[in-house]
Amino acid sequence: MSATLHTGRSALRPVHRAGRPAIAVTVGEPAGIGPEISLRAAWARRHEVNCVLLGDAAFLAMTASTIDPDIKVAALSLQALRNGGLPRFGPERLCVIDIPLAAHVVPGQLDKENGRSVLATLDAAIEGVQAGWFEAVVTAPLQKSTINDAGVPFSGHTEYFADRTGTAQVVMLLAGQPLAPAGKPVPPPLRVALATTHLALKDVAAALTRDGLGRTLDIIDHDLKTKFGIAAPRILLCGLNPHAGEGGYLGREDIDVIAPAIAAAQARGIAASGPYPADTLFQPKYLRDADCVLAMYHDQGLPVLKYATFGEGVNITLGLPLIRTSVDHGTALDLAAQGPGLGLADCGSMEAAIATAVAMADAVAASSSSSQ
Amino acid sequence: MSATLHTGRSALRPVHRAGRPAIAVTVGEPAGIGPEISLRAAWARRHEVNCVLLGDAAFLAMTASTIDPDIKVAALSLQALRNGGLPRFGPERLCVIDIPLAAHVVPGQLDKENGRSVLATLDAAIEGVQAGWFEAVVTAPLQKSTINDAGVPFSGHTEYFADRTGTAQVVMLLAGQPLAPAGKPVPPPLRVALATTHLALKDVAAALTRDGLGRTLDIIDHDLKTKFGIAAPRILLCGLNPHAGEGGYLGREDIDVIAPAIAAAQARGIAASGPYPADTLFQPKYLRDADCVLAMYHDQGLPVLKYATFGEGVNITLGLPLIRTSVDHGTALDLAAQGPGLGLADCGSMEAAIATAVAMADAVAASSSSSQ
Ligand SMILES: [Zn+2]
Ligand SMILES: [Zn+2]
Repeated sequence: MSATLHTGRSALRPVHRAGRPAIAVTVGEPAGIGPEISLRAAWARRHEVNCVLLGDAAFLAMTASTIDPDIKVAALSLQALRNGGLPRFGPERLCVIDIPLAAHVVPGQLDKENGRSVLATLDAAIEGVQAGWFEAVVTAPLQKSTINDAGVPFSGHTEYFADRTGTAQVVMLLAGQPLAPAGKPVPPPLRVALATTHLALKDVAAALTRDGLGRTLDIIDHDLKTKFGIAAPRILLCGLNPHAGEGGYLGREDIDVIAPAIAAAQARGIAASGPYPADTLFQPKYLRDADCVLAMYHDQGLPVLKYATFGEGVNITLGLPLIRTSVDHGTALDLAAQGPGLGLADCGSMEAAIATAVAMADAVAASSSSSQ
Repeated sequence: MSATLHTGRSALRPVHRAGRPAIAVTVGEPAGIGPEISLRAAWARRHEVNCVLLGDAAFLAMTASTIDPDIKVAALSLQALRNGGLPRFGPERLCVIDIPLAAHVVPGQLDKENGRSVLATLDAAIEGVQAGWFEAVVTAPLQKSTINDAGVPFSGHTEYFADRTGTAQVVMLLAGQPLAPAGKPVPPPLRVALATTHLALKDVAAALTRDGLGRTLDIIDHDLKTKFGIAAPRILLCGLNPHAGEGGYLGREDIDVIAPAIAAAQARGIAASGPYPADTLFQPKYLRDADCVLAMYHDQGLPVLKYATFGEGVNITLGLPLIRTSVDHGTALDLAAQGPGLGLADCGSMEAAIATAVAMADAVAASSSSSQ
């Protein structure tokens, strides 16, 4: 199965770590909060993980000194890594790979002159994972319009990573740790994958097919095993219609499309079940027995995830031949315009994205060492 | 406004209470768990509220004695109430108004012979509210098919109450008290109203209209004021599409239908706002400033509510000229088949529905006494 899923060059291979795991962090739109939250989160986590920032070194050094004079950065060129790999660093400094910007940055103001530089950080991250410099990529938010205005058709991070790694289909997964209500046991992590993503609601029903759902289930099953270390992932599927169609009275898709896709996946050995009414399935007592929920569309799955995790969901792209996580918020230009020194931007989501990437890299390292 | 909303005879009028408030509880499908949970919940709450059960008195007496020999019931005929009103009762006994069943009940087995008796309990509840015997109605779950099989076209409790009270439009509201995560403040009650209810997903977008949303907002605003005692209800609307359409890129309805309906409602003095992305709006930090969320469809709003309240949502019908709440689960024929004596059915939802009805009756009583 992995041969059909991973047509790109796989970077999921044995890792020989010397010290902290190394993770690429692309700092995103320079006029947004990405540079600030990348620096803050990387610095906060520096004793556990070597976050290598990909962005303009001078701009990041200046931003770092504005945030906190204690933050030290060390700049390297991409060419230096191509020549000699990622040098060993201790946690005293954050390593920055210099991907120069074209124009001066005014926080809060988009400038299409810098669009291509943002893309170059993504290219360098992919190159670095394939070269073995990094075990994973974490992306700070970018602004699609800046890149499109720079003359490069661009529909989003996820699509770009899929295209650059030759991946035919990816799956968006949001994950987070729900807080336990007082007196209740700590719930397991909540993981919500989406069968369709950014699509007008009226187009959702027609976009679901048996084969498409089957491939989505294959990707979820494969990646929960390989990147999360879950031996036999249990996947619960939401129905498309209210009450999962109530026996066909509220729409036929649950019977005609979803149920056959589940039966076929079960026949392939995947522990998928459903379709269940979404408002039943998302109760804590049912989620306890699930490793992942597959929601049929964006607003069926994500409101619960954001509610349960107090907005701290991590966005994970499944199906890629590399580990990629990101924050689940935008560039917040309005906050960025007030400057990085005030601490207005919350880097909690970025820290969670980094921690998730490290946990996934650990799972890959564990499975490759056990299979050697 | 209330004249156009409430074409039926309004039972929302000054109440002169002597002791506990009196609430009608229709026990629902006799072969389901309705009789058991009605008895258990009414008995548990008997010191705060006089729950008058509407159902077959002999069957309920037998069920009560199986559940707990301490439960005492007192049977009355509907005619006795018509002659002399609801007699005063203390909390030593549960009052049952006898609405006889036609056939012997086998728990877990539906029998169409009893369909008309179930309907008669609803008729008696409406009559009793209009006559001033009861301040509110709480309905236990029934089985639509039993009533249809008995030859009476029936699409649900809500539609039946609307029809019998001459109400042109009602709004389904689910409400509950979210549990506070350890160390976080107790959140306010979560109330989620639905702009569309039990409709195939593919039909949702076309079902939304500016006028329909406007009437829905009028009903929510009116009922939150009159039945919940909220002086200026703040209503947050979800967008229809992901990210509320992202400026029209992911569907036009948020711009063309929802935003104008909100603007028109604001012009009428209603504190409505949005449309907001559902996965933003349903974060606790935004819900703190809302009295009600209006979701555009079933699975956009109810999964969060069920998650947050651990399945203990109360279903409230807004727009009726009476207070009606119900549990938010079904007849659970499989549980019922094992008999009422084992305590398998959880009456927590029923207790919540009763408590909500009492709180609403208190709000009506308070507003009518203050306006006298
Ligand atoms: Zn429903
Ligand atoms: Zn989204």
